[in-house]
Amino acid sequence: MVNYASFFSRVADHLQGSAIRKMGVMALRDPDLISFAPGYPDPVTFAWMDFREIASELLDRHEATALQYGPTRGLPNLIDAVVHISGTRGIRTAPEEVLITTGSQQGLDLLGRILVDPGDVVLVELPAYTGAIAAFRNAGAALVGVRQEEDGVDLDDLDSALQRERLAGRRVKFLYLVPNFQNPTGLLIGQAKRQRLLEWANQRDVLIVEDDPYGSLYFEDSATAADTRPIKASDGDGRVIYLSSFSKTLAPGFRVAWIVAGEALIAKLDIAKQTQDLFTGALDQRIVFEAWKRGVLDRQVPKLRAHYQNKRNAMERALKAGLGDLVSWPAPRGGFFLWVALPRHISADELLPRAIEHKVIYVAGSAFFVDGSGRNLVRLSFSLPPVPRLEEGIARLTALVKEELAHHPEPVGI
Amino acid sequence: MVNYASFFSRVADHLQGSAIRKMGVMALRDPDLISFAPGYPDPVTFAWMDFREIASELLDRHEATALQYGPTRGLPNLIDAVVHISGTRGIRTAPEEVLITTGSQQGLDLLGRILVDPGDVVLVELPAYTGAIAAFRNAGAALVGVRQEEDGVDLDDLDSALQRERLAGRRVKFLYLVPNFQNPTGLLIGQAKRQRLLEWANQRDVLIVEDDPYGSLYFEDSATAADTRPIKASDGDGRVIYLSSFSKTLAPGFRVAWIVAGEALIAKLDIAKQTQDLFTGALDQRIVFEAWKRGVLDRQVPKLRAHYQNKRNAMERALKAGLGDLVSWPAPRGGFFLWVALPRHISADELLPRAIEHKVIYVAGSAFFVDGSGRNLVRLSFSLPPVPRLEEGIARLTALVKEELAHHPEPVGI
Repeated sequence: MVNYASFFSRVADHLQGSAIRKMGVMALRDPDLISFAPGYPDPVTFAWMDFREIASELLDRHEATALQYGPTRGLPNLIDAVVHISGTRGIRTAPEEVLITTGSQQGLDLLGRILVDPGDVVLVELPAYTGAIAAFRNAGAALVGVRQEEDGVDLDDLDSALQRERLAGRRVKFLYLVPNFQNPTGLLIGQAKRQRLLEWANQRDVLIVEDDPYGSLYFEDSATAADTRPIKASDGDGRVIYLSSFSKTLAPGFRVAWIVAGEALIAKLDIAKQTQDLFTGALDQRIVFEAWKRGVLDRQVPKLRAHYQNKRNAMERALKAGLGDLVSWPAPRGGFFLWVALPRHISADELLPRAIEHKVIYVAGSAFFVDGSGRNLVRLSFSLPPVPRLEEGIARLTALVKEELAHHPEPVGI
Repeated sequence: MVNYASFFSRVADHLQGSAIRKMGVMALRDPDLISFAPGYPDPVTFAWMDFREIASELLDRHEATALQYGPTRGLPNLIDAVVHISGTRGIRTAPEEVLITTGSQQGLDLLGRILVDPGDVVLVELPAYTGAIAAFRNAGAALVGVRQEEDGVDLDDLDSALQRERLAGRRVKFLYLVPNFQNPTGLLIGQAKRQRLLEWANQRDVLIVEDDPYGSLYFEDSATAADTRPIKASDGDGRVIYLSSFSKTLAPGFRVAWIVAGEALIAKLDIAKQTQDLFTGALDQRIVFEAWKRGVLDRQVPKLRAHYQNKRNAMERALKAGLGDLVSWPAPRGGFFLWVALPRHISADELLPRAIEHKVIYVAGSAFFVDGSGRNLVRLSFSLPPVPRLEEGIARLTALVKEELAHHPEPVGI
């Protein structure tokens, strides 16, 4: 056999896979496993019958654009829809400022490619979304973490990080943020802080990459649409590169997402996308466009808010009942995740093999920290399992943690 | 507005777009234009009703895998189907050696990423497929062209190119080939030469990237399945990385293609794909798998052979009738393209604006040559236009070339 080692590029030698993906593969293999690992939307919420009707009509009509090659920018109708959707979020934009991507992951990868030279600094939250970490790192970025407070990144820590990196002679390209119900913490950046972040980015001449997959999935018992207003909505200068997606609101299997950014940046992303996949799936784009046009998206979103709020409640109840004061988490006001701190001396990574024996999995927190911290933290997704499975999964986790504490009680005095 | 110039990476500064994509956008804008530019399959051949039935059933059944996140490698059923399809082409492989990609363009891009360090040499045919040129160049490859004979690349030229580059201290990573009905020339590499190419690659320790989108679309008046047997079919060592696709046989809008290669290489590509788009569209993969399972693919392919052979005939007839000995081309025995040499003093690039005035477009040959040659050549795709439009388009091209010759007669003595 050929030994490929001598053929691999330096990028290949340092490629970083996704901890979440690994867990996803594991969950597929064992149906008895209860998985709180990947942030999958709940397929019982999908608008199956609407999609069936739309797909049937498109294929019945021999609608060539549904199966043919299409423009790299995206289906023009869908681009117009994105301009409209952006408007409902307070973002005024134009078709020239939109690129349809094959999921937001492609958007992150393309941004890494066109913005990052090896060694350039990208600022990320501590913790931050692993898919973004991997995309930027694979582009050669030096990732620098910034602490978070309850209302989002700590501005002092942010500015010191920037100054420190610049003093060291490195170029700081952008700050990556998930302001709405962050993955993994579920935190929401306060509106006042969003304004200050934008001012800071303008003053310091740094771009902001604002990733917003969960914004419309706020929980009505504790948040409103106004709380989720994107930073991009206040940006008149192309300072903010905004990503969003239909994966969490319609379905991820379609792989349809988008970027809104300044025209010159979109033009560059367009060329980068040409060599990456030519264009995003045509049938997917058509179905998503029709679902928007026919009001499916607007009908779905309020239902999803209630659905996931109910699941968050179930998971919080079960955790409180099972582990009480042994664990804690910031109460999420939207999104898919509970970010749970286990007793401080427990390593979530080391616990994972035993969790698998107990037929329950999570993503260990360390995967989300670019500084190597977060060892006692776990991300629990409440989005996918039905409520009884969710309760059963937390019961298994409870048994596991209690067992662990019985064997290894918390050392006194730390 | 933010000036993005200071933020762009070096890659972004040198990104190369696709000449074919540019033409595609132009054709969309003007329905009167007859386009011989992009190699689009003919949507009248698509199995519309089968796809409709399949999509309806999948969505009716609330088949979660059709709309949910899925594994990066691809849908396991579809991977098994690819193993089977490979077998029918003489390629013995296993699921671990297969990766489903979002179109073959993604395969080319991923290969660039994991195999090419800036400055590494990739050997390509003169001329070569522009999408591959762009993907490898954007990865930083130094592209070195190798002359073609009637039965494919010139082995002497190939070996001298390799030796020359190695003497100059550069690493030669792979040779990129489209052995079946090459894009753009339509040429078929002879079976004897395929054997010698594989031996050469083994001796010289170079990989071969074999791109085979058109292999099953041979024309029965002049070729057989045996003529299209891939190089990969003789490769027991993982020397050949084989790419193929459902885009030309089922539909390109699905964005489903695949790579067969050694397990270690596929594992690396898998990780690279994770950060690029997580996974290939789930509904697309399900529909394609079902179309294969239900025999749609097997029923389609013989029809397509006849359909495109008929179009090739129509274009050849029209060209002979219109331009006779003024133009020439190698007779294609399959695929989508006629590779036409105009009178030697005509520049296809310079002629293009006047072609657009005449409401006909093509891709100028120079886009396919990494050495800047090919100025009097044009690639004409006969795959998309209905026969009457195809005849009308050649009539327009005929008028244009004759007009050009009347104004600028061929200089005597060159």
